[in-house]
Amino acid sequence: MSDVKKVVLAYSGGLDTSVIVKWLQETYNCEVVTFTADIGQGEEVEPARAKAQALGVKEIYIEDLREEFVRDYVYPMFRANTIYEGEYLLGTSIARPLIAKRLIEIANETGADAISHGATGKGNDQVRFEMGAYALKPGVKVIAPWREWDLTSREKLMAYCEQHEIPVDFSKSKKKSPYSMDANLLHISYEGGILEDPWAEAEEDMWRWSVSPEAAPDAPTYVELTYERGDIVAIDGKPMKPHEVLETLNKLGGDNGIGRLDIVENRYVGMKSRGCYETPGGTIMLRAHRAIESITLDREEAHLKDELMPKYAKVIYNGYWWSPERRMLQAAIDETQKNVSGVVRMKLYKGSATVVGRKSEQSLFDESIATFEDDAGAYNQKDAEGFIKLNALRLRIAAGKGRQQS
Amino acid sequence: MSDVKKVVLAYSGGLDTSVIVKWLQETYNCEVVTFTADIGQGEEVEPARAKAQALGVKEIYIEDLREEFVRDYVYPMFRANTIYEGEYLLGTSIARPLIAKRLIEIANETGADAISHGATGKGNDQVRFEMGAYALKPGVKVIAPWREWDLTSREKLMAYCEQHEIPVDFSKSKKKSPYSMDANLLHISYEGGILEDPWAEAEEDMWRWSVSPEAAPDAPTYVELTYERGDIVAIDGKPMKPHEVLETLNKLGGDNGIGRLDIVENRYVGMKSRGCYETPGGTIMLRAHRAIESITLDREEAHLKDELMPKYAKVIYNGYWWSPERRMLQAAIDETQKNVSGVVRMKLYKGSATVVGRKSEQSLFDESIATFEDDAGAYNQKDAEGFIKLNALRLRIAAGKGRQQS
Amino acid sequence: MSDVKKVVLAYSGGLDTSVIVKWLQETYNCEVVTFTADIGQGEEVEPARAKAQALGVKEIYIEDLREEFVRDYVYPMFRANTIYEGEYLLGTSIARPLIAKRLIEIANETGADAISHGATGKGNDQVRFEMGAYALKPGVKVIAPWREWDLTSREKLMAYCEQHEIPVDFSKSKKKSPYSMDANLLHISYEGGILEDPWAEAEEDMWRWSVSPEAAPDAPTYVELTYERGDIVAIDGKPMKPHEVLETLNKLGGDNGIGRLDIVENRYVGMKSRGCYETPGGTIMLRAHRAIESITLDREEAHLKDELMPKYAKVIYNGYWWSPERRMLQAAIDETQKNVSGVVRMKLYKGSATVVGRKSEQSLFDESIATFEDDAGAYNQKDAEGFIKLNALRLRIAAGKGRQQS
Amino acid sequence: MSDVKKVVLAYSGGLDTSVIVKWLQETYNCEVVTFTADIGQGEEVEPARAKAQALGVKEIYIEDLREEFVRDYVYPMFRANTIYEGEYLLGTSIARPLIAKRLIEIANETGADAISHGATGKGNDQVRFEMGAYALKPGVKVIAPWREWDLTSREKLMAYCEQHEIPVDFSKSKKKSPYSMDANLLHISYEGGILEDPWAEAEEDMWRWSVSPEAAPDAPTYVELTYERGDIVAIDGKPMKPHEVLETLNKLGGDNGIGRLDIVENRYVGMKSRGCYETPGGTIMLRAHRAIESITLDREEAHLKDELMPKYAKVIYNGYWWSPERRMLQAAIDETQKNVSGVVRMKLYKGSATVVGRKSEQSLFDESIATFEDDAGAYNQKDAEGFIKLNALRLRIAAGKGRQQS
Repeated sequence: MSDVKKVVLAYSGGLDTSVIVKWLQETYNCEVVTFTADIGQGEEVEPARAKAQALGVKEIYIEDLREEFVRDYVYPMFRANTIYEGEYLLGTSIARPLIAKRLIEIANETGADAISHGATGKGNDQVRFEMGAYALKPGVKVIAPWREWDLTSREKLMAYCEQHEIPVDFSKSKKKSPYSMDANLLHISYEGGILEDPWAEAEEDMWRWSVSPEAAPDAPTYVELTYERGDIVAIDGKPMKPHEVLETLNKLGGDNGIGRLDIVENRYVGMKSRGCYETPGGTIMLRAHRAIESITLDREEAHLKDELMPKYAKVIYNGYWWSPERRMLQAAIDETQKNVSGVVRMKLYKGSATVVGRKSEQSLFDESIATFEDDAGAYNQKDAEGFIKLNALRLRIAAGKGRQQS
Repeated sequence: MSDVKKVVLAYSGGLDTSVIVKWLQETYNCEVVTFTADIGQGEEVEPARAKAQALGVKEIYIEDLREEFVRDYVYPMFRANTIYEGEYLLGTSIARPLIAKRLIEIANETGADAISHGATGKGNDQVRFEMGAYALKPGVKVIAPWREWDLTSREKLMAYCEQHEIPVDFSKSKKKSPYSMDANLLHISYEGGILEDPWAEAEEDMWRWSVSPEAAPDAPTYVELTYERGDIVAIDGKPMKPHEVLETLNKLGGDNGIGRLDIVENRYVGMKSRGCYETPGGTIMLRAHRAIESITLDREEAHLKDELMPKYAKVIYNGYWWSPERRMLQAAIDETQKNVSGVVRMKLYKGSATVVGRKSEQSLFDESIATFEDDAGAYNQKDAEGFIKLNALRLRIAAGKGRQQS
Repeated sequence: MSDVKKVVLAYSGGLDTSVIVKWLQETYNCEVVTFTADIGQGEEVEPARAKAQALGVKEIYIEDLREEFVRDYVYPMFRANTIYEGEYLLGTSIARPLIAKRLIEIANETGADAISHGATGKGNDQVRFEMGAYALKPGVKVIAPWREWDLTSREKLMAYCEQHEIPVDFSKSKKKSPYSMDANLLHISYEGGILEDPWAEAEEDMWRWSVSPEAAPDAPTYVELTYERGDIVAIDGKPMKPHEVLETLNKLGGDNGIGRLDIVENRYVGMKSRGCYETPGGTIMLRAHRAIESITLDREEAHLKDELMPKYAKVIYNGYWWSPERRMLQAAIDETQKNVSGVVRMKLYKGSATVVGRKSEQSLFDESIATFEDDAGAYNQKDAEGFIKLNALRLRIAAGKGRQQS
Repeated sequence: MSDVKKVVLAYSGGLDTSVIVKWLQETYNCEVVTFTADIGQGEEVEPARAKAQALGVKEIYIEDLREEFVRDYVYPMFRANTIYEGEYLLGTSIARPLIAKRLIEIANETGADAISHGATGKGNDQVRFEMGAYALKPGVKVIAPWREWDLTSREKLMAYCEQHEIPVDFSKSKKKSPYSMDANLLHISYEGGILEDPWAEAEEDMWRWSVSPEAAPDAPTYVELTYERGDIVAIDGKPMKPHEVLETLNKLGGDNGIGRLDIVENRYVGMKSRGCYETPGGTIMLRAHRAIESITLDREEAHLKDELMPKYAKVIYNGYWWSPERRMLQAAIDETQKNVSGVVRMKLYKGSATVVGRKSEQSLFDESIATFEDDAGAYNQKDAEGFIKLNALRLRIAAGKGRQQS
């Protein structure tokens, strides 16, 4: 273990990663560089500086990555209408590649030979961090304390703190919750505690970002989202940067009880786990993006996107953002978004985000053809006969030869 | 046109298909057999008998197909979590193959050589009826009056009625609505009228099966659905037949403002069309089925189902229920449902159907492994390192050779 | 039929399309523009000028499109290792979009309002021509004489020639063969005649581009193909343009009895048809491209390409080159070819094209890891245990709960 | 390591697995049960008995599994036209699940708590053995000596033999070859040695099962294969069991220089490896199966099979035969084979296996429709116009709205 000289740690400023700072210094006798990012988790990141300094850290990186996060990760993902296993909006998954990338860039800047993180050995996040790290710097050493150390219970962890004079107040911030949580601009997640019984309903006071549908306003809120090339660029006509869009939609969604999700999902490491998520803005965005696509995308590219989406979601969920297959899929997805521009009107009400209108200068909806009224010859109904006859030909031949048909 | 001797018509008892009876008799100088089915559209079917008799029809088929419809069509489709273009629950599509099958069976029973229907030449339904007919009786003659006649406006139709003494009161029943509607136990649909502008919000008084979320009760309703091999067999512990399940869920969903949908979809014949749908029970079923699968399905079969689903949805939407590719996909889907048994608990509230619990004797959720607490060695966290290292190997090699990674 | 003023015809100079010139002039009373292209079919195109002039055509287009054909159509298609139904190299399919594009461009240049072609109403080519035409000029009028006229037998056609003084010698050129044939730089195809019995073996004298394996040289020929970004740029070290590459490989392949194929395929219009094909150069290219990819492509992008390929092949076979879904797939495919550079060595011998070596500066083959010898720690075999354990976890959990496993 | 009492070893009788017997006895102080199977590798299995006895083994299993191997593994796989990465016929992969299954069954019979195998930590076979074992007996202990011991070179292995008095003559049998080889009824494989350079051509004397194409007979061999429900049941009219079919085709293929393959493939553990394979019978079977399907399968099920095949191949290659996703895919594949019956005629000549005829009572090839001659109205060419017009509608609308089309 003596070959590590400097390690860059994804540092939250919380108890666990503070213990890791100390443990790394001790175990590897190496220098620790901390990296703390604001990706919209809703907590101040600046306090991490003093905490890191108190632990003897000399190189401290604290960064606001909110814009980059939404622009380069969240937005491209939403172009694909991405959902994992039919429900999950990938709020945690999509933040990891950015953290991995910055860890490696900082390692390169500071001459570090290793990176470290506070994810456990049971979850997906270790995979996402490390997959990104290996992809971007193949020779990097990865230290995953939770897979190595013997601080396997809260008690041992606290004992370690005392022994190493890690300020006790660290331990307070997150301990209010019995849940393991993760948050960024796209979502906040809850695991553990009573959620470990999939039959148990989540308690109302667990949820932090949204009011309950019951507590939401009795009148609906309408909002108009303007798209350009697949991305939202304005809300109610007001131009915004990507992260401002998401912040605004989180507020609107949360106020209207939108975006709560309670699922059992399949982790990449092979187990099922129960998670609850609040994704207020993302829930609105998913619906709205499908709506703007519904009038601007060609049918076959839309269907091909739908067939590729589960694969793309799996690639991101499993931690392969920085992979050739993700770039390949992204190239296909982005190719389809050139004309995905226009406006979607949504109604937000007590937990539901409903599309009530969509319009676009790029619209392929052709009223003159679709109409139930006289179409003045725009569409020749007689064409349908040949269309059906030839599409049925293979079935007719098979039935004519006595093949089972039902 | 003289070669048709007897034609079986899908007869609703309404104005349009009554005109078709007369038109067929006149144009083809043939006998007409009418077939009217109760598939849960919510209108009496028995009155169709007198109307058909009045039009001189001698062979009249009136049938209650609700159980068969849900058991053999709706249920198998829901095993696949089927949605078309991310939104549409295929309420109209799934009823057509059953109608087509009965039309052909009746043609065989009555010695008819043709079938006929009242679908227009612009829509999907003509395809679904005829594809089924050709697949089941390849030599059958199909007569689609809307593609043949010149009664292209409401006025011409009414003139035809008057001229042929088709009772005027036929025309009243459906004319209250400016929308073209279709209904069965799974849904009711609306097209045309102001909906032809995709930006225009549907008017509240259009919706027939559900109260608005705003008008729904202020307290949530909880319901427990019991699954056996992928199908719901009981509600709140009470065993029910498939169509009773759907009727019950329609009531529960409709009362709670659940299942409204407003979309622009891509028709098989090549145009986009705007449709509004109410699918109260189906909306609950879709969510609940995913939930019971989330604890009983293996990850990889679940993912494979997700990848196949868009294709399966397209097969049904396009009218290929009676095809080898549908049977092939169904075989794969049904193979996965053997262990999809258990109970799902749902909360219904003002437009939302939310899963709050799921349990099963077949559950693959393993609390002893998934826990955040000490797992007593059920899972070895050190395994994760090798897992990640080898999964990353191809990326590390590529990066080591200087390949672009971001 | 009086509304057509000028029509651009895909004119081969042969009997059938010469009859079409006259028939169009007579039937539509319109001007005919002829378009004849050299796409490597192996016949002179210049003679078409005199023939067209003799038929009174004033605007005559004769073009050498060989380079464009291979560079912009054949090469992009081979990047995907495209084969239809496991066997067919799409030789006819890939030439049609280029013809369709030029027909429309010439229509635009000459102010024509219609295009016409000599494909029958039973085949795929009508679809490919017309799909391209409609996609590129949506309002164009398409005239497909074989679907319209009553010249349904060879006798009627000859009578028409005589009646309209179409030079008799037209009829001789192609009548030597009992087969319907089509050729371009990628292949020559045969249909009809005794081939209409799928059990009958093709006669040796049918084949035109290749010697029989039996008649090929007794010594193998070796050839080295140099790839850059997925395309062959040199043969045996000699730089060549795309069409020169294909011409050279056709010669090499044909001389060694390579590229004969005898299949029954599924046409887009719904029937099965038997076809024989000679694709000497293409057969070599397919194998070689897979070989260069085998050392330069990442595993997952290679597998994703394999999953998308059948869809891409279908898109091209069915005539949708000029479609959004083809562009979408092409974007994904082309994204993967950036590093597909290097050299493949092939052995050609009596009908077989075998890969015997491949090398690349972009190779991802890592001898130091793959070796059976001591790898000096490049790969840690112990990693495999964790890799297997976690990949097996879901199976172990399921088996532990008594699930069927075999 | 003391907790293992009895281990079942996949025992070839060769040097390596003999060393493993001794090493297991010593290292784990446990009883070893040997299992040796004849799966057509072409070596006597009975001599393994004496060798095992000499090593002190008391429970010795020697079995002829050739029929089961071909019937239950090879045949189902060929129903899918399975090839990995466009080239590899999965000869090694498909034998592993059977071995794994018997290892576990024997463990259950003998009360063993562990299994062991001689596969290295770099390859796919360890995964295939262990994945099967874990799936069938989740609590089994797996011992993979090559990942554990320090006998990492041939010298150390020989020293171990000497030290433990393992008969020297063991070492002679396989040492004639510089290649790592594996064989069963489906194929023989070669890796290592000069093959570790992908540019180096395999030497002629490496190949063991086939003559070179150059040395094959100068006259072609014709053979007729009779299929029933997707499987070959007779050759040249003579009924045979599955393994007799494969033995016969191996002989025919090998005599005609058929089935040699030289590729670089992507291993599941993340590296690329170069392998050479001889699969004489399998190469013939793949071609022939596609041919019988070409006249008996519906188009859309054929295409769906082609889209699923790469996934199915990957499942088998990666070792997931005993998984829900394999069963799911198999259900879909087998559903399509009901009518895949008939006869295929093949020509075998100097390395090529060519289809020259196919016939079936289930044939969907309809000469009366496909013919270039007058079809007496079986197919209405005018239907094609509507077919094309509606299929083009979405493209026409898009082009009409100014969308890019090329």
